[in-house]
Amino acid sequence: MDTDVPGYIDENAVGFFAALKEWLAIPSISADPARHADVRRSARWLARQLQTAGFPTVQVWETGTADEPGLPAVFAQWTAADPAAPVVLVYGHHDVQPVEPLDEWDSPPFEPAERAGQLLARGASDDKGQVFFHVLGTRAWLAAHAAAAPPVTIKLIVEGEEESGSPHFADLLRRERERLACDVIVVSDTTMWAADVPSMCTGTRGVVAAQVDLRGAEHDLHSGSFGGAIPNPLHVLADLLVGLHDSDGRITLPGFYDRVAALTQAEREMFAKLPFDEKTWLGTAGKSGAVAGEAGFSTLERVWARPTAEVNGMWGGHTGPGGKTIIPCEAHAKLSFRLVAHQEPAEVTDTLRRYVADRTPPGIEATVTVEGLGVRPAFSPIDSPAVAAARRAMERAFGREVLFTREGGSGPEADLTGILGAPLAFVGVGLDEDRAHAPNEKADMGLLLKGAQTAAYLWEEFAAAAAELRQ
Amino acid sequence: MDTDVPGYIDENAVGFFAALKEWLAIPSISADPARHADVRRSARWLARQLQTAGFPTVQVWETGTADEPGLPAVFAQWTAADPAAPVVLVYGHHDVQPVEPLDEWDSPPFEPAERAGQLLARGASDDKGQVFFHVLGTRAWLAAHAAAAPPVTIKLIVEGEEESGSPHFADLLRRERERLACDVIVVSDTTMWAADVPSMCTGTRGVVAAQVDLRGAEHDLHSGSFGGAIPNPLHVLADLLVGLHDSDGRITLPGFYDRVAALTQAEREMFAKLPFDEKTWLGTAGKSGAVAGEAGFSTLERVWARPTAEVNGMWGGHTGPGGKTIIPCEAHAKLSFRLVAHQEPAEVTDTLRRYVADRTPPGIEATVTVEGLGVRPAFSPIDSPAVAAARRAMERAFGREVLFTREGGSGPEADLTGILGAPLAFVGVGLDEDRAHAPNEKADMGLLLKGAQTAAYLWEEFAAAAAELRQ
Repeated sequence: MDTDVPGYIDENAVGFFAALKEWLAIPSISADPARHADVRRSARWLARQLQTAGFPTVQVWETGTADEPGLPAVFAQWTAADPAAPVVLVYGHHDVQPVEPLDEWDSPPFEPAERAGQLLARGASDDKGQVFFHVLGTRAWLAAHAAAAPPVTIKLIVEGEEESGSPHFADLLRRERERLACDVIVVSDTTMWAADVPSMCTGTRGVVAAQVDLRGAEHDLHSGSFGGAIPNPLHVLADLLVGLHDSDGRITLPGFYDRVAALTQAEREMFAKLPFDEKTWLGTAGKSGAVAGEAGFSTLERVWARPTAEVNGMWGGHTGPGGKTIIPCEAHAKLSFRLVAHQEPAEVTDTLRRYVADRTPPGIEATVTVEGLGVRPAFSPIDSPAVAAARRAMERAFGREVLFTREGGSGPEADLTGILGAPLAFVGVGLDEDRAHAPNEKADMGLLLKGAQTAAYLWEEFAAAAAELRQ
Repeated sequence: MDTDVPGYIDENAVGFFAALKEWLAIPSISADPARHADVRRSARWLARQLQTAGFPTVQVWETGTADEPGLPAVFAQWTAADPAAPVVLVYGHHDVQPVEPLDEWDSPPFEPAERAGQLLARGASDDKGQVFFHVLGTRAWLAAHAAAAPPVTIKLIVEGEEESGSPHFADLLRRERERLACDVIVVSDTTMWAADVPSMCTGTRGVVAAQVDLRGAEHDLHSGSFGGAIPNPLHVLADLLVGLHDSDGRITLPGFYDRVAALTQAEREMFAKLPFDEKTWLGTAGKSGAVAGEAGFSTLERVWARPTAEVNGMWGGHTGPGGKTIIPCEAHAKLSFRLVAHQEPAEVTDTLRRYVADRTPPGIEATVTVEGLGVRPAFSPIDSPAVAAARRAMERAFGREVLFTREGGSGPEADLTGILGAPLAFVGVGLDEDRAHAPNEKADMGLLLKGAQTAAYLWEEFAAAAAELRQ
């Protein structure tokens, strides 16, 4: 062997970053119709790079319909020499967040700049840098092994609408289910705990959003004439909302926790190993406040591994200056539930509808409007073969123990695993301090190279775990 | 005696209504600065009429200050021949409500019209008609007794800002406390149960209004990143509001009921005699809804004789279209309490402040802003000498039993009784169907004449009850 994986990556780092900067210079903002041509250009740029890197199959896939066209995803495939090798699908996205407010950027968002080992540009961390390290990692493995094909079949699916809520992604997955068929899905769009605390995400929460509208009298009533003897929709709404939690902060909807996968002792211990400082975390909320939540769980457990019910907005009656002694005729609230595996959005919305109907007193009419179908939670147990193999790869690259986290938010991962029927492994080297979605987004260049190393080892580890992955 | 009271009133009815129509033609809308000259004209018109009617003392009193002038009140006095006779102060107002929406009026609001025994005009019932019947009643008594002076000293105070919330009235009462000194106060600005169910109001509720503002994080937070582990101001607000009532609909503020005058058995029986149809009453709320309120009390008792806590408005978080998965940083509510005798607005606001402070969890900042000083409740027990005498007068005029009601709303009565230190008797002949404050306001002409009869008998009954009134 002329070289090894780290050696190849070191030697090719300059070229890697030069290419990545070209890609970062394309303002592929999917939320901005004026930038849709750039999103298409970004897809073409990536396709060309993948061809140059040696991927035998590279395609740009259109999404949406003729009537409502979407933005393109890039698909690539490099088949293993061994037909029995596992098939690994890597997920990422090539679109980026908007850049406003522009005046808060230290350098223009689409003129990539290096500063003290950091690469500054919109998309550097979320998600172009993390997609691109897989290409370098694959080249490194091939060079280190003087091989013509990787030890697993690598498929890449890099979508162009993730920052707009992936509106056509589930349809694309269903349409291309056969070409995307795989044994494991690697998601590279998450963060690690810290640069010196490598970690893997093992789940994302699902979400259900609904609006509750209450109606009492036909018009606002004089509180002198009616006050005390007519139900007030705002009181009823407050009661409905308060009733969603018991005094332990548990959600009261019947059966709500029935499908919740309990945290294992091993996972709780892994969470507890993370150097979590509650005060610092509270500081990111902009104030030295306080934590609060479900009894019996730590803050990280609450945010990552437990479902929630949140009131996102509420309104009714007189909200202008001064007083108005009325019993308002209407009250409204927007609610959302974060779900964890294996809760089903449809079951939660059914239970919510029944709860509101049962708890609404005579004289008030209640309507529950659910937004869309919701997002299902995604979950990869820490002892699953996919996670274990990915962890070994990451530990080899970082030379230290890799811990586990989860994501409190929601993404397209549940669709990936649900539609394609393969387990997930989250392999990301972003950091919370990368300011994804905010001005001055950046990526740690050293971590992107560690990501490339991880990718190279990942193919080996998955190949070695072929039997377990196929179980 | 050449005539009796009813006879005199019959003979002079045409002239009475002709004069009243002149007054009703003056658009004395206190809420409209463009009509303030008309409010002044209305005061001068009344002063001239009172002089013509024989009142020896008639004055137009300016209100407010040089910097912030108010609208004038009219004061008149007719002293009894007997220096030991009781002094009776009659309260009413000569300003009227705005008239919008104008296109809903069947005839122009300031062109008084007669139709089937009804007098149609803004102010016909509220309150010019009810002020003016006292003049006819006084003349009737003098004619029937061929007397040169009434049997009690009559004082009239007719304010010009009642429909604007009487902003200068309490100051005027304090300034003119000596000239307004009296043994009993007659308020003629309320309604009877029905044309064939004469009744007297015996109390008005007080009111305290406040805004509660809650603040959590510095900015709205992502509910994926923080949901489940940070207090949500909307949840805290809902909890604060729900906690104001127990499961019996009683208000939980410590000591809230301590000063509440319990309903007497006699008063409950009187309320129960009223031909109250709950379904019809609910219909005035515009919908066949349901009643609800404090356990152990009827609907009328709840509205008239029990204090309340109402949420008048509430807002916070995302209230626009679609969903937004945030933990909002703010939550707000406007509250008002209706008070009954002998609750003190200042005590209620203190208790509210303590309640909010005690119930606000760590991580949330709460502010309570109270509007003004509030309005104290007013109350005249049904067995008080003033009420008993007024009831006898009214029963003589109507020839049937007079029942008792209360008002759920709030007015300047508490200031009158509190500042002048005299008991109240509510003598009004308006009806709820008079559409005070709405288009097509009207007064029943027959009832206005019954009001004049009541006034005439009132002076006799008060004179006869002199000893009890002075106790």
